[in-house]
Amino acid sequence: MIEKVFRDPVHNYIHVDHELIYNLINTREFQRLRRIKQLGTTSYTFHGGEHSRFSHCLGVYEIARRITQKFEDKYPDIWNATESLVTMTAALLHDVGHGAYSHTFERLFDTDHEEMTCRIITSPDTEINAALCQISPDFPDKVASVINHTYPNKQVVQLISSQIDVDRMDYLLRDSYFTGTNYGEFDLTRILRVIRPTENGIAFKESGMHAVEDYVLSRYQMYMQVYFHPASRSMEVLLQNLLHRAKILYQVHKDYFSVSSPRLVPFFEGQISLKDYLALDDGVMNTYFQSWSEGPDKILSDLAQRYVNRKVFKSITFNKSNEEGLDTLRSIVKNVGFDPQYYTAIHHNFDLPYDIYRPNAEKKRTQIEIIRKDGSMIELSRLSPIVHSLAGTVHGDSRFYFPKEMLSDTGIFSEHTQSFTSYIKNDQFIYGELHDH
Amino acid sequence: MIEKVFRDPVHNYIHVDHELIYNLINTREFQRLRRIKQLGTTSYTFHGGEHSRFSHCLGVYEIARRITQKFEDKYPDIWNATESLVTMTAALLHDVGHGAYSHTFERLFDTDHEEMTCRIITSPDTEINAALCQISPDFPDKVASVINHTYPNKQVVQLISSQIDVDRMDYLLRDSYFTGTNYGEFDLTRILRVIRPTENGIAFKESGMHAVEDYVLSRYQMYMQVYFHPASRSMEVLLQNLLHRAKILYQVHKDYFSVSSPRLVPFFEGQISLKDYLALDDGVMNTYFQSWSEGPDKILSDLAQRYVNRKVFKSITFNKSNEEGLDTLRSIVKNVGFDPQYYTAIHHNFDLPYDIYRPNAEKKRTQIEIIRKDGSMIELSRLSPIVHSLAGTVHGDSRFYFPKEMLSDTGIFSEHTQSFTSYIKNDQFIYGELHDH
Amino acid sequence: MIEKVFRDPVHNYIHVDHELIYNLINTREFQRLRRIKQLGTTSYTFHGGEHSRFSHCLGVYEIARRITQKFEDKYPDIWNATESLVTMTAALLHDVGHGAYSHTFERLFDTDHEEMTCRIITSPDTEINAALCQISPDFPDKVASVINHTYPNKQVVQLISSQIDVDRMDYLLRDSYFTGTNYGEFDLTRILRVIRPTENGIAFKESGMHAVEDYVLSRYQMYMQVYFHPASRSMEVLLQNLLHRAKILYQVHKDYFSVSSPRLVPFFEGQISLKDYLALDDGVMNTYFQSWSEGPDKILSDLAQRYVNRKVFKSITFNKSNEEGLDTLRSIVKNVGFDPQYYTAIHHNFDLPYDIYRPNAEKKRTQIEIIRKDGSMIELSRLSPIVHSLAGTVHGDSRFYFPKEMLSDTGIFSEHTQSFTSYIKNDQFIYGELHDH
Amino acid sequence: MIEKVFRDPVHNYIHVDHELIYNLINTREFQRLRRIKQLGTTSYTFHGGEHSRFSHCLGVYEIARRITQKFEDKYPDIWNATESLVTMTAALLHDVGHGAYSHTFERLFDTDHEEMTCRIITSPDTEINAALCQISPDFPDKVASVINHTYPNKQVVQLISSQIDVDRMDYLLRDSYFTGTNYGEFDLTRILRVIRPTENGIAFKESGMHAVEDYVLSRYQMYMQVYFHPASRSMEVLLQNLLHRAKILYQVHKDYFSVSSPRLVPFFEGQISLKDYLALDDGVMNTYFQSWSEGPDKILSDLAQRYVNRKVFKSITFNKSNEEGLDTLRSIVKNVGFDPQYYTAIHHNFDLPYDIYRPNAEKKRTQIEIIRKDGSMIELSRLSPIVHSLAGTVHGDSRFYFPKEMLSDTGIFSEHTQSFTSYIKNDQFIYGELHDH
Repeated sequence: MIEKVFRDPVHNYIHVDHELIYNLINTREFQRLRRIKQLGTTSYTFHGGEHSRFSHCLGVYEIARRITQKFEDKYPDIWNATESLVTMTAALLHDVGHGAYSHTFERLFDTDHEEMTCRIITSPDTEINAALCQISPDFPDKVASVINHTYPNKQVVQLISSQIDVDRMDYLLRDSYFTGTNYGEFDLTRILRVIRPTENGIAFKESGMHAVEDYVLSRYQMYMQVYFHPASRSMEVLLQNLLHRAKILYQVHKDYFSVSSPRLVPFFEGQISLKDYLALDDGVMNTYFQSWSEGPDKILSDLAQRYVNRKVFKSITFNKSNEEGLDTLRSIVKNVGFDPQYYTAIHHNFDLPYDIYRPNAEKKRTQIEIIRKDGSMIELSRLSPIVHSLAGTVHGDSRFYFPKEMLSDTGIFSEHTQSFTSYIKNDQFIYGELHDH
Repeated sequence: MIEKVFRDPVHNYIHVDHELIYNLINTREFQRLRRIKQLGTTSYTFHGGEHSRFSHCLGVYEIARRITQKFEDKYPDIWNATESLVTMTAALLHDVGHGAYSHTFERLFDTDHEEMTCRIITSPDTEINAALCQISPDFPDKVASVINHTYPNKQVVQLISSQIDVDRMDYLLRDSYFTGTNYGEFDLTRILRVIRPTENGIAFKESGMHAVEDYVLSRYQMYMQVYFHPASRSMEVLLQNLLHRAKILYQVHKDYFSVSSPRLVPFFEGQISLKDYLALDDGVMNTYFQSWSEGPDKILSDLAQRYVNRKVFKSITFNKSNEEGLDTLRSIVKNVGFDPQYYTAIHHNFDLPYDIYRPNAEKKRTQIEIIRKDGSMIELSRLSPIVHSLAGTVHGDSRFYFPKEMLSDTGIFSEHTQSFTSYIKNDQFIYGELHDH
Repeated sequence: MIEKVFRDPVHNYIHVDHELIYNLINTREFQRLRRIKQLGTTSYTFHGGEHSRFSHCLGVYEIARRITQKFEDKYPDIWNATESLVTMTAALLHDVGHGAYSHTFERLFDTDHEEMTCRIITSPDTEINAALCQISPDFPDKVASVINHTYPNKQVVQLISSQIDVDRMDYLLRDSYFTGTNYGEFDLTRILRVIRPTENGIAFKESGMHAVEDYVLSRYQMYMQVYFHPASRSMEVLLQNLLHRAKILYQVHKDYFSVSSPRLVPFFEGQISLKDYLALDDGVMNTYFQSWSEGPDKILSDLAQRYVNRKVFKSITFNKSNEEGLDTLRSIVKNVGFDPQYYTAIHHNFDLPYDIYRPNAEKKRTQIEIIRKDGSMIELSRLSPIVHSLAGTVHGDSRFYFPKEMLSDTGIFSEHTQSFTSYIKNDQFIYGELHDH
Repeated sequence: MIEKVFRDPVHNYIHVDHELIYNLINTREFQRLRRIKQLGTTSYTFHGGEHSRFSHCLGVYEIARRITQKFEDKYPDIWNATESLVTMTAALLHDVGHGAYSHTFERLFDTDHEEMTCRIITSPDTEINAALCQISPDFPDKVASVINHTYPNKQVVQLISSQIDVDRMDYLLRDSYFTGTNYGEFDLTRILRVIRPTENGIAFKESGMHAVEDYVLSRYQMYMQVYFHPASRSMEVLLQNLLHRAKILYQVHKDYFSVSSPRLVPFFEGQISLKDYLALDDGVMNTYFQSWSEGPDKILSDLAQRYVNRKVFKSITFNKSNEEGLDTLRSIVKNVGFDPQYYTAIHHNFDLPYDIYRPNAEKKRTQIEIIRKDGSMIELSRLSPIVHSLAGTVHGDSRFYFPKEMLSDTGIFSEHTQSFTSYIKNDQFIYGELHDH
């Protein structure tokens, strides 16, 4: 086919040379990704971060295309050229099962975006499946097996999903670009120069060790500064409480929800077909929230308004040792007139930026391997002191969320709110420590 | 107040030092702009261009803030410091009346986004009006008069709306950044250095003439290459035909639309309140289109599916001299089974990149003035040969849109489609010229 | 050979896959380019523009490499793969004959950098020639014939030297990047996508017409704003007068110059060997100027000091109609005590940004050809109105330079200097026009 | 005065509002910095890094200007506005005493650039001193005392010289930009937002902690990847051996050096005046090296040629435990015919990226302080785990340099060179370890 290109601010151009890729992009299931924001509630904190999963998936594909093309040209002995198409396809489709606000949804409605991805790929009802079958009848299953890590070729699996994979490479650069934060930038060109296939996976030439180190640092910094931002998590918490309220109300007000939010009914009922799942997107959800904000239930409409109009909850950090003290805060919140079940929340965000392979770990990680001049391999953290210091360490925090109104020191509830703020110092919960009520 | 900042990829940071600005940003009417894409259907061509009007409005405000702060510091004699707040406010709010797909809507439903902006500002029902009234009871009217160009101070009016205003400065840079096209880049820093107030408006010091020239060229290039892109216009045309079909069907199927798309009813009825207007956004519209795509009317559901899944019409250019020949094409389209009323369209896109002030013109333009070393003023095109060549000239094209199926040369309609394509050469309509049917 | 890369801020990486290219870079003649600034006196105006011809030549080579590789891959029928190496080599070496401040030198000492490039390539005394001969005995001559436009293959000649060639593509981007002016930026990636060989040269696909148009505009803007900057030309004029003075003094003070500036002697004598030519560079010249600044001749030492310490002359524009009036200014300069031969100068800078092929023109230009969908070719300015307006038009100005002291309005010469400034308005010479002495 | 600006690729514009700053830039001593490369031999590895100390000094000044202006505006109680000028001046002049290849020179000729800076500032013979005296007779001494850290105001001293000072902020960004490596980029805008004066120095608001952390990481990465690059150090080592040879030869060949390199004579003699010091720059040195490359001494001319034509030595790393084994290598080098005194070298490069204040340390460091919401201060590494892991740790390597010829495995010396390479594995010296000769 004649090469098609898509202008892209991150990779300059996305190049499409294979008919299959072009057909997949044009399916309804893939086009649907235009209607789902890549960063969910983060765009409420970083207003530039409004890009969609469509844009990210194209980027992931493009990186896969560049890598596999290079592998074909330079390492024909160790890379099987027939793996290129399955790799590019899996890269393009790896997120096709994401729905609106996936993480919140998965928790509340027990869905799983990775499983959905595989269903979309393998179900005979989808345009994606039809396009894949044109390659061969077993091609859908091959692609799905890359997504769920059972594909036999470890090179392909690691390119799609590992501690340094095409997915992460794109989202660090892309989220950085659109939010304008820059922390996620790393030297992609150099990494593409030094990446190479090995017998059992992928590895990086030693001359590019610092670029790989920089990538690990970028990942760490994006988590700390963008993905874990307290304000975005506040919107997530609001969303969670809002949907939780709706789910409970549904049991007694089915009619209201059938009219105001029909496409959510299967989720409330717990009987979700693939079609139901694909019918939801950010716009549909926001349309429903706007309806609810004018509905009869006080709590539902108040939470919906807060969400739609971005009236974020405030938060403080706490830790294991004073967690039990949060009940004290919850009862003050209650005294002020807010139901703590819907007006407070706990939110944990922790990340393990990098780890070596640990045979006994629950979730084993494929460690990043560096190839020395003599061909021997050495794990990244043994060469990089700064990666060594990050390896195996967990970073993040736990936060307690509550209405902004709790921080007011005037008004009829001032006695309560002043008591509330006496437990806070430098945005931390100080129960027990310095507090002597 | 303590300065607040918003991270912005175009201006690095948006700085908010005035309580009013902060309060306005937090109103429901302003937050609603997060749900309306700045570039409408252009994001279907340039997938990065998914940024919202919210992001653009913050940017326009930021440029206004930088300019007025500079005017206060450097030109206290000629710039009245009390104008700064009204300027920044008008900049922030200038687009608040935009709705989803404004341009298509305005044509079909006779709305006007500028008028809506003024209504939102002056109506006592909005949170924006309430915030503005806290400055003074007549502040909303003052801001509205800047928007509709009746404000007595020409400096302020020109900053907000002229051939080189804060609105255009932001959108060229922003649309350029997000689409990744770069054509809209110009040297904002230099322009901010050389801009200055004069007695009757604004002007630019001669040392920055080339930066102003570059801005004019960037504007021209963005129109030619991004805003007038045939594929985006194809989506606009689809949208137009789709809504047109719905409007006509509504007359006989009111119930269907009351259930499937309730918030559009006031528009179909032609009786729109401000609340009705504000209830629409991109997500709501797309939700309705998805409903329609499963509805009973063949044409409505087909057009909705084409829109939702981005099945664009194809197009060719034509000109005045062969326009009447398009009926020939329309009848072939009809022969293939498509109703030309809904499956073809004409779309004109023309722009006058720059013009001098012409006293007898229908739409008078405020020309760009350059200040020479001796204080005298000279109109831009007299200094810049390249701007001179653009001044007063109109650029763009007229296109005829039709279904992609018309370009197929096989199938049962091949006789018709081959006849159809015989009228096309290099994507131009060649009726009459080289064609001798 | 194993691919070598050079980190480059403009092209990210320069890739070297061919032994010859690597060997050429390592020759003494090529390494010498590190000691010659690309922009000559422009770095005295734009302090970031301190990059060398070495850096530019690598960039030109890299663009040639990308183009020829693409031609080999995509157009094997119309591009002869054996031309790739000669193209890349000519690209790398096209400027190797440049010396320190070439343009000034050429005027004063009757040298010619293009001829020098050919001598370096073909002379058996150079390391470059030795490296080239390893390909084949006639390879040096082939490369030289590309440089002097006699090579039979027009594709190669046009890539190296035409209105849109690899040389210009690199210098616009590079000079833009290093000076920080941005005006020279254009979409190289897109141009590399749409460029293709034709039977008689090169052409560009219509889909990239706007990128080519943007390139032409960038070129125009860089000339107007960077290359023709009056302050840089002031340094050039100083340099010219300084060397002119030295040349004249040499006739009577040969000993002085043999000691203070031995490597210039052959130039003063008018007998220059290739070795003499290659012995000069920016550092050598500046070392000599520093010596002269402490020398016995008042004019030579004063001019040298002005040059070394960047005490630029001031300037005004004039035109054909009032040029003869400059004698009036020269006599005032003389009255103040400056010898006009050394303390004034005329400097013309004019550029023809683009032109079509004109069979009767003295310097015929190869016009830029655009390929339409049906394979026909059309000259650029027929598609682009903005290029049309530039085509065949000449831009620039003529300036009269004089010591800054002439603008002082106090001091013992104030009568003269006030008379002098009465001829200036808005930095223009107004003799005859508004002036009525 | 009317504000002057200098276009700068890193800071966009350098703004000069104060007459003194403008006058200082125009002095001969400051203009001389145009002739000294900021990165010395690094430009032989990263060809883009050809920027001068002139460009860097302007950048350092600009950062100081932005900070002090902000301090004046926002912290008038704690920042004394009269300190702004001395801060900006010290920032501009902090490197004015740098000479060509300072580090190598200082070692060989016992000069000290910081001391030279103070001499240039305080000596009545310089134009800089004259400009400074126009502010007040004691102004030169004040500025010099900032440079040598004895100035009483710790805020000023820390801005100019500490672990996060205006010097480092500029060079990380600038060296990154020009070399094209990007590793040195950090969020300067954010740091300028959160920096503030305290009673005893400077500190950073907690909201910007991650930007400070990113700065520390950038510093670490630039050292590891750019400043410590083995190829640049190879050129440094060549330079050192070359000058060392010249210094020794001078004792017996004074005449030769008086003619070929007159301005070095005071250095060889060990009697250097300020004028002598200022007479050297990169161009002068390179001019001399080119002379020497044609001189009679075989070693001097060979080393000079290697330097001028960039024929770098190769290197391997070694460590304390096998350092004594290097003698074995030296004797093989000698056997091949190279004098190890001039053809080998040891080069150590180690950096302590960050450290807390240690009262007993030889070189005490001012630690970076973060201000919490309640006004208390906390040292950076206590908030940032990644900085904690770097604090107090030293990074870098020791390398042994030798001629590339030693790695050839053919030729008449192949027995020796094969023995030589048997001591090398993965570019490391393996004496004793795996080697069993």
